[in-house]
Amino acid sequence: MKNAVGREIPEEILKATGKDVFKGSFAMHQVAYKAATHTVAPVIDPNYSKLVGSIEDVLKKCGIHDGMTLSFHHHFREGDHVCSMVMEAVHKMGIKDLTICASSLGKAQASLVPMIEDGTVINIQASGVRGPIGEAISNGKLKGLAIMRGHGARVRAIETGETHIDIAFIGAPCSDDMGNARAVGSQSGSDCGVLGYAAVDAQYADKVVVITDTLVPFPNVPASIDMTNVDYVVKVDDIGDPNKIATGAAKPTTDQRKLLMAKYAADFMVHMPWYKDGFIYQTGVGGASIASTKYLAEHLRNDNIHIGVAMGGIAQTICELQHEGLINKIADTQDFDTAAIEDIKTNPNHYEITTSQYADPFNKGAYVNKLDFVILGALEVDTHFNVNVVVGSDGVITGAQGGHPDTAAGAKCTIVIAPLLQGRSPAICTDCTTVTTPGETVDVVVTDYGIAINPKRQDIIEAAKGCDLPIVTIEELRDTAYNIVGKPDPVQFEDRVVGIIEARDGSIMDVVRQVKKDVEI
Amino acid sequence: MKNAVGREIPEEILKATGKDVFKGSFAMHQVAYKAATHTVAPVIDPNYSKLVGSIEDVLKKCGIHDGMTLSFHHHFREGDHVCSMVMEAVHKMGIKDLTICASSLGKAQASLVPMIEDGTVINIQASGVRGPIGEAISNGKLKGLAIMRGHGARVRAIETGETHIDIAFIGAPCSDDMGNARAVGSQSGSDCGVLGYAAVDAQYADKVVVITDTLVPFPNVPASIDMTNVDYVVKVDDIGDPNKIATGAAKPTTDQRKLLMAKYAADFMVHMPWYKDGFIYQTGVGGASIASTKYLAEHLRNDNIHIGVAMGGIAQTICELQHEGLINKIADTQDFDTAAIEDIKTNPNHYEITTSQYADPFNKGAYVNKLDFVILGALEVDTHFNVNVVVGSDGVITGAQGGHPDTAAGAKCTIVIAPLLQGRSPAICTDCTTVTTPGETVDVVVTDYGIAINPKRQDIIEAAKGCDLPIVTIEELRDTAYNIVGKPDPVQFEDRVVGIIEARDGSIMDVVRQVKKDVEI
Repeated sequence: MKNAVGREIPEEILKATGKDVFKGSFAMHQVAYKAATHTVAPVIDPNYSKLVGSIEDVLKKCGIHDGMTLSFHHHFREGDHVCSMVMEAVHKMGIKDLTICASSLGKAQASLVPMIEDGTVINIQASGVRGPIGEAISNGKLKGLAIMRGHGARVRAIETGETHIDIAFIGAPCSDDMGNARAVGSQSGSDCGVLGYAAVDAQYADKVVVITDTLVPFPNVPASIDMTNVDYVVKVDDIGDPNKIATGAAKPTTDQRKLLMAKYAADFMVHMPWYKDGFIYQTGVGGASIASTKYLAEHLRNDNIHIGVAMGGIAQTICELQHEGLINKIADTQDFDTAAIEDIKTNPNHYEITTSQYADPFNKGAYVNKLDFVILGALEVDTHFNVNVVVGSDGVITGAQGGHPDTAAGAKCTIVIAPLLQGRSPAICTDCTTVTTPGETVDVVVTDYGIAINPKRQDIIEAAKGCDLPIVTIEELRDTAYNIVGKPDPVQFEDRVVGIIEARDGSIMDVVRQVKKDVEI
Repeated sequence: MKNAVGREIPEEILKATGKDVFKGSFAMHQVAYKAATHTVAPVIDPNYSKLVGSIEDVLKKCGIHDGMTLSFHHHFREGDHVCSMVMEAVHKMGIKDLTICASSLGKAQASLVPMIEDGTVINIQASGVRGPIGEAISNGKLKGLAIMRGHGARVRAIETGETHIDIAFIGAPCSDDMGNARAVGSQSGSDCGVLGYAAVDAQYADKVVVITDTLVPFPNVPASIDMTNVDYVVKVDDIGDPNKIATGAAKPTTDQRKLLMAKYAADFMVHMPWYKDGFIYQTGVGGASIASTKYLAEHLRNDNIHIGVAMGGIAQTICELQHEGLINKIADTQDFDTAAIEDIKTNPNHYEITTSQYADPFNKGAYVNKLDFVILGALEVDTHFNVNVVVGSDGVITGAQGGHPDTAAGAKCTIVIAPLLQGRSPAICTDCTTVTTPGETVDVVVTDYGIAINPKRQDIIEAAKGCDLPIVTIEELRDTAYNIVGKPDPVQFEDRVVGIIEARDGSIMDVVRQVKKDVEI
């Protein structure tokens, strides 16, 4: 069955998942649903202790068994030790057929690959599956189906009960004996700044385990994870490597192509009606995104305009601009560098938001709904303005949706930055290999060869008239790309569907198939 | 059927309510249950507005109809205008058979009495029903049953789904257009300090309406009530009278009897093993309670001991001691005077907690579980150490459970202060008129005629040995009281049960019957 972005979703996948095809970004607006339930074992006896001596013991106390769904968060990014630590203990116990529901999976969880191969893990749900796990899935090694869902969609899946978490494992830099957990305050240097991804897990999982390297006296406040949701607290030596927490850290780019696109994006924004005092802004931490913010800051200074809220994943540049007075508040969903982690410790206008508050399409209103501008990246953008941020040009799962579809849907002006060519591959194409963010929510595409505006947004086209920027059509960009490197041959896939790209509302945006066996990856 | 405090609970009440008899304070510890569900109408479209022009309009948008359950909070106490305002609009629309689930009801809601009489309101659930509503219930005017449940039990009832709130009305001193509501920041002087009672309503009600006198720009943070839970925002001229918010305010007592009991309580505490640096403490805002805290402070100064957390309802004295450095943190569930309201605006160590965090027996651990000492009041204490704080000596519902049963169950040392005689009635008696807090959780009774220790607490009896305080038995206190004023005749009731006293876990602690028609009240 064809969906609203023209993707054919196989009937057997609809049947197997019980899902519908994507019918448009706002199809489910105000369509009521029943929130999920979960099991709670109340702690009434004040003498009861939640402290448990080891991962093995806590797994037993949680009644771990075959077929369960376990959840993890990725605030520690490539420095995360919690997922591997827990899964190695699970593996030793011989538990099978598990579903892993993580906010994201990457290189830090590479030890899961043998567990995928031996059937310990048979289903994976994550924003993205970078590195060896993505390769394993694309090679058909996962017995079940990988569900790639963005940050908002993950909250939705959990709060609607589509995904029921049996045990949530929350790595926390410090906790008290009741489970009040904070993202700063580690005595082992594991501070990660915020814990917003794990908030929904704590709220809806049957069993919630806080794993920390630092026990502090009660009450550990303000807590990111509240004791009222925590069953057990386990003290371990090491939950994450602080140096690798910061590997997403942004470095100022010197790439002239990126600087050009960044300048285009900033110069474009100032022509838009939403460029006025107090606007709400999000950008990523890629080189071009950071550079855009820096160019934008020059405009802010000149025009005496201030950003009301800078939101999303936070890195040093945003904190510096906030200190300069160009940004009023920072609403932080994850920290990408130690500067941001240090900043949230002392800056009262830099505060944590949960992923539900940030991006959930199924609550009663998220921060993304208030966004004026978001600047996003892309692996591919097609002439329908559809974007792919998950599947590489070789057909292998390599990226993550993150907040891409959420912010695109929410923002008044969604700007995607992509160089016309990614190596020898055209980033602007007739049809994306995989659609991850629907074109109806993508307004502007900035490339090093010009800027294309979605014809759906006549208001933006009108506002951009008279600016001295190279405004072109998306087809012109595509044609230029094809003229330079040729029209690419479509990636070759096997028939088997190994994963789905889930839309914000839980419907199916696209499927991902197994790569051809003879493709070297 | 007789329950664990020896009260006979009529079979028809067990049948009508579907409830069990009280089986002990910790009977449900770790007995798992399924959390409640509720309906959510998601806000995906960023152009959607939650602002509604009037109470009438918002009632229509919420689909108000006969038989619904509406909820209110009582942070404004006797100055609350929200409940009356909403109910008058409901009444005009001719809606019938409503259940009111309020955190408490008092004189400010007296306009509900005619609505009880005409069948607009047929069920009431509240911590207490002081004033004319209590009289109406005790006189049999409510068609259904009044459920008196303490603060923790209210959270439990809502989160287990026993009480399903159709529409929650949350009076908030300020809000942004998304419904981020704060308890301070009113431009009309309605600041009430905290909004913790309403947190569970926001989380579990199908429709959540924020009613405010002050609209502020987005994002209104940190928010007590989060936009992700709010359906509508209504701006009105007036949500509450700040002067009457403060009518619970404590004044230093000069009553020698109260001062004596206060000194006894403070002097007793210092002999207990929990009197050590960092202990956790709660007291009420009655004259004797405040005086106890002041006497305790003298000990703290002399012994160089600090309170780790002072929790519960907060008034000026606690804030002053915190400023003096005798208290580290204040965990605030409601503010009783303007000094406390002003303090929480600027004092980072004075913070709001929700009623679930405070007292809920059915979450995974509440603040009350960490209490070392709590000092509580009583209308009656019996020789089984059972306490009554709801039904007056005339048999009329006149008080509220509040956090009494929660803190008593949680604290390592629960101290009840009661003058031996309340006017001509003995406060220490053989059997309470009504049991509201079970004796197994009451450890020490301090009167102006001596201190009785619950024989169940041999550790406390042991610790108190050698102190120069008048330790007596509870029977001695009862006998002294009866010797002075005579053994009182039991209050005369009709057969009809008009209300139940619900235990923390939802079971029935006692029933309240209609007062004899010829009793003048």
